[in-house]
Amino acid sequence: MSSKEAQITDWFASQSKLQPADYPIGIGDDMAQINLGPDASVLVTTDMLTDGVHFDLNQTTLEQAGYKAMAVGLSDCAAMATIPIGAVASVALPRAFEAERLKELHAGLVRAGERFGCKLIGGDITSWQDQAGALAISVTVLSRPALSRPIRRCGAKPGDYICVTGSLGGAIHGRHLHFTPRVAEAIRMTQTATINSMIDISDGLSTDLWHICRQSRVGALIEARKIPLSADAEKSDDPLASALNDGEDFELLFTLGPEDYSRLLGLWNMQTAITRIGRITKTGKMQIEMPDGRITDLQPLGYDHLEK
Amino acid sequence: MSSKEAQITDWFASQSKLQPADYPIGIGDDMAQINLGPDASVLVTTDMLTDGVHFDLNQTTLEQAGYKAMAVGLSDCAAMATIPIGAVASVALPRAFEAERLKELHAGLVRAGERFGCKLIGGDITSWQDQAGALAISVTVLSRPALSRPIRRCGAKPGDYICVTGSLGGAIHGRHLHFTPRVAEAIRMTQTATINSMIDISDGLSTDLWHICRQSRVGALIEARKIPLSADAEKSDDPLASALNDGEDFELLFTLGPEDYSRLLGLWNMQTAITRIGRITKTGKMQIEMPDGRITDLQPLGYDHLEK
Repeated sequence: MSSKEAQITDWFASQSKLQPADYPIGIGDDMAQINLGPDASVLVTTDMLTDGVHFDLNQTTLEQAGYKAMAVGLSDCAAMATIPIGAVASVALPRAFEAERLKELHAGLVRAGERFGCKLIGGDITSWQDQAGALAISVTVLSRPALSRPIRRCGAKPGDYICVTGSLGGAIHGRHLHFTPRVAEAIRMTQTATINSMIDISDGLSTDLWHICRQSRVGALIEARKIPLSADAEKSDDPLASALNDGEDFELLFTLGPEDYSRLLGLWNMQTAITRIGRITKTGKMQIEMPDGRITDLQPLGYDHLEK
Repeated sequence: MSSKEAQITDWFASQSKLQPADYPIGIGDDMAQINLGPDASVLVTTDMLTDGVHFDLNQTTLEQAGYKAMAVGLSDCAAMATIPIGAVASVALPRAFEAERLKELHAGLVRAGERFGCKLIGGDITSWQDQAGALAISVTVLSRPALSRPIRRCGAKPGDYICVTGSLGGAIHGRHLHFTPRVAEAIRMTQTATINSMIDISDGLSTDLWHICRQSRVGALIEARKIPLSADAEKSDDPLASALNDGEDFELLFTLGPEDYSRLLGLWNMQTAITRIGRITKTGKMQIEMPDGRITDLQPLGYDHLEK
């Protein structure tokens, strides 16, 4: 296992002992799911964003920070093709923070939520005691299943095509603050095709594909020249590495059978591009075919929140 | 208005424009509620706890911090007499924090949740970039209604008796780390009586009673000599002020009609004491009858997270 974060997450999951009838999805997916009745269930995801890591208030407005904090939760809803229904936000404020400026943060949270009908319905405010305390925002988003079941990370099958939405790499140059969570795309997809597994690309393509492979117990072979590079990635010294490992693209990475792929592409009428970048294998390892035809192992080199 | 926090919360509530059919309870109560179907709804609360404010890791174990972070959310479930069903936790870790020690935090979260069937079903981990970044934990608890509707802050009626569970004051001397959320008491109460309004005492009796009065558009008269003082409050220089304003008691403050009060007391067989401390009035202001018989105005002098 190469990731400290995955290691501790696995440990938490092993401790949780959830009854699948009440908790169909627990720790280790983009959202957890609780059944509330024969035809009702709710999904939940939480994210903690901090000044200096997920945004830098020297260069980022509070409105942008609020937007991002809500949008990363909405991206988790997209990752499972579920419909956002509401969110709560809790904040730890720097000591010198003026209460009035909470309205800027609020404006960003609301702007991200409202295009998907996700209401801000509650929250909590606290202030650091210590002068050095910086802004932390935690947003929890609730969603409900769309017509299909929530799409999980663990359903990839050998032979599946691996696809991504949009283009990847270099999000740090700006896109990470104003991306559009792929909520509408995810729901549209599941209306026309059976998606076997899905995740949103937050840590980076290599690491998020690794999550799918690990949880589905499969391997993957992707083709470097098919990976859609963003304009920001193109400008970097190593565009391929940028697309593979930068993270915070908040695009969707998903797998589906070849027939479903054909149906999906045939009926796809949204602006967001869908690109096939490889296929799921039985090998149990991740590989990449480089532009020169060489096939090498692909390491999950995206972001690990516990590696320093 | 005397509270900065209430002022900004009112502003958030005024912006939220929730449809009551879908969102029966929004910003400004202990939990918000979302309807998910004809017979299904979910409630949600979130709290942010930080090192130096809600606990002090120089004196508090990570296990205790985890326990408190979950228990404050469970106390919100109690405040509305709802049944906890699951929780997610997000943390911002100090840079030098060892991942292995997350297990201690986890143990506390689980210990608080398990006695009420509240499963930890997901989370998020991030680390501060800055060396000065201290531990922040945000816990979001989901619950479902018990047989009665969720009890709100806004239902107090003139003539209601004002009651509290347990005893108040001086929680900072230890009880704030190992209190029992009054989940079982709240549900038992609503099985035998109609509770008109309820809140948990987190900011302090004076401030939390003020929340009930403000949201119910009523006044209150409480009797100083009836307020149950904790042993910690007794030891302080001003036991009454301690019980009124210290906060973090996480006891229940509730109001109900005199007949319901008699029925509740007659059938009450739990160990936790219920004490009548006053009554709801039409005056629109909070008053307190001092031990010498003098009646004076009662100010909400509990904790305000935005006052410095």
